Amino acid sequence: MNIDPGLFEESERTTPQAEGRQFVEVGSLDLERGGHLGSATIAYQTWGKPDPSNAILVCHAISGDSNAVGWWPRLVGPGKAIDTDRYWVICSNVIGGCQGSTGPLSGDFPFVTLGDMVEAQSRLMDHLSIPQWQLVCGGSMGGMQAIEWARRFPSRTKGVWATASALRHSAMQIGFNEVARQSIFRDPRWQGGNYTDQGPTDGLAVARMLGHLTYLSEPAFEAKFGRRLQEGDVKVPDAGATFAKREVFQVENYLAHQGHKFTERFDARTFVVVSNAIDTYDCTALPESDTRFLFTSFTSDLLYPSWQSQTANELALGSGHESTWLDINSPLGHDAFLLDENEQASAVHTLLGN
Amino acid sequence: MNIDPGLFEESERTTPQAEGRQFVEVGSLDLERGGHLGSATIAYQTWGKPDPSNAILVCHAISGDSNAVGWWPRLVGPGKAIDTDRYWVICSNVIGGCQGSTGPLSGDFPFVTLGDMVEAQSRLMDHLSIPQWQLVCGGSMGGMQAIEWARRFPSRTKGVWATASALRHSAMQIGFNEVARQSIFRDPRWQGGNYTDQGPTDGLAVARMLGHLTYLSEPAFEAKFGRRLQEGDVKVPDAGATFAKREVFQVENYLAHQGHKFTERFDARTFVVVSNAIDTYDCTALPESDTRFLFTSFTSDLLYPSWQSQTANELALGSGHESTWLDINSPLGHDAFLLDENEQASAVHTLLGN
Repeated sequence: MNIDPGLFEESERTTPQAEGRQFVEVGSLDLERGGHLGSATIAYQTWGKPDPSNAILVCHAISGDSNAVGWWPRLVGPGKAIDTDRYWVICSNVIGGCQGSTGPLSGDFPFVTLGDMVEAQSRLMDHLSIPQWQLVCGGSMGGMQAIEWARRFPSRTKGVWATASALRHSAMQIGFNEVARQSIFRDPRWQGGNYTDQGPTDGLAVARMLGHLTYLSEPAFEAKFGRRLQEGDVKVPDAGATFAKREVFQVENYLAHQGHKFTERFDARTFVVVSNAIDTYDCTALPESDTRFLFTSFTSDLLYPSWQSQTANELALGSGHESTWLDINSPLGHDAFLLDENEQASAVHTLLGN
Repeated sequence: MNIDPGLFEESERTTPQAEGRQFVEVGSLDLERGGHLGSATIAYQTWGKPDPSNAILVCHAISGDSNAVGWWPRLVGPGKAIDTDRYWVICSNVIGGCQGSTGPLSGDFPFVTLGDMVEAQSRLMDHLSIPQWQLVCGGSMGGMQAIEWARRFPSRTKGVWATASALRHSAMQIGFNEVARQSIFRDPRWQGGNYTDQGPTDGLAVARMLGHLTYLSEPAFEAKFGRRLQEGDVKVPDAGATFAKREVFQVENYLAHQGHKFTERFDARTFVVVSNAIDTYDCTALPESDTRFLFTSFTSDLLYPSWQSQTANELALGSGHESTWLDINSPLGHDAFLLDENEQASAVHTLLGN
């Protein structure tokens, strides 16, 4: 397999940009699992010429935000699969998030589901006077939201593209999220979610390190790092003990860097809220509608294996929908949904009838 | 794939048994990477009729101990692949361990390598007047030690069987170990390795939870847990926050249980010492000798993928050795080396000329 190591630099993901972000109050929300949000705010960004009859919604993954052209530059922008020259493209930060939308500021925040996130997005849609999305799309959790759009608002969702995603998390996916959550909970600065400073940054950093292990693939890690040692700029903290002092592998430095960076831009409470929303999501049926589906997956994706997209496609077909599943041969792991431009774009063009 | 969920109960592994354990002082050790152990003790167990001309050494994995019939009951015992009715079977706790052999009691313990562990085992071999092992075998790190035996003491190693193992860790394997180590280091009770109480049990528990995610496979997790909820006997600690309170998935309970159990029998310093030894090990050449090799791997092993055994086999063949690689079709993941009885036994019988 041919892997361009430079590709991965992009998947380090951008830090959120406040520039261009707009806010809308969408009123109170009765939540799916009980509890209530008194007055919810949604942070969102738009690109392209405002045209409610020609709008696309992009949904972000667990660590994302409303800046879709920032975190998905190969797929969203002028001339890209989600073409901001042709469509009015909207992306909003989820409820429960920490990038502008209403999210947890203490341990008292209620339990939020992917359904609640989509419900809140539908209020944004009303605010923008959009009758129907030409497409709702996203990768990973973003793809699960897109599926939830078709389940909850079938007549407002003309097309769904879910990439590197699933109808529900498997036991192993729940397991990865739970190890990350326990890493946060067991940090003494977690304080039941009631911290007022930076909070459990050690636990959050370890959670993110684990995340990055699942975003790549074994061949991608080999191509990117192998057993090469870090020369200078060591970011792995000193662990004190004599037996812990040795040369640092590049992969260790990469993980330390990713873990640290994440704590500077993300909140541990949001990680818990959103990962719980993902793990409890379970789409078992899709209503009759004219919604057309596209599911893309990647052969080396450890986190969202291809069979999950295959299963989603079977559900859509079995519910009488037009649906396509494309399993893309890639060594880039889960991050391939951020990095693969051509094969995803071609399938999306077909879905959109371009 | 057909998976018997009952099988996995065995892979929960036994707690160490002090019964039958013997100790020997093997003198001082100059360590491969500098440093010195003044007087090293090795804890070991034996099974079968003492016969130095007919002895087999079993090497344990990172969390193992000298009780080979306890943690490897399907492969070691009367009538098993490693037949205690036919051979004098020896297993010792590694240097750096926490089950009887000399290991770290503070942050001042030196950096120990797999070579040092094997050097210490060779002193035990001298003590038992064994001129040559009929076989040195083990899984995971145990297999790497077996390989190191053939590299370091070729004339004393008639046969090597390394299962679910490798010549060296890949970037991804180092990554998994490093996330586990950081989880330990970032626990405030780590104290540079200088704790005198139980130490960083939260960090160690999270490290072990992560370990168990890599020991099974995605289909094994599906078969064992799926999305089933835990009914009663919830072992996941209360995280305080409202948004963290929900039903517990069985897979979460399993991981919590494994994490907790580990902290009752294992020491965080040993985890760091031994995982560092594994990550820095790199066997690039094997000397000429009559040593015969067997490498077994498992198709669903996420942690030690089959290509690593294939590569090891190629090194052995390229160095003029008799060598066989058997890739066993199994859905059980890395734990298959503990659980698969028949296919491994048959290959070992052939290697031993039985």
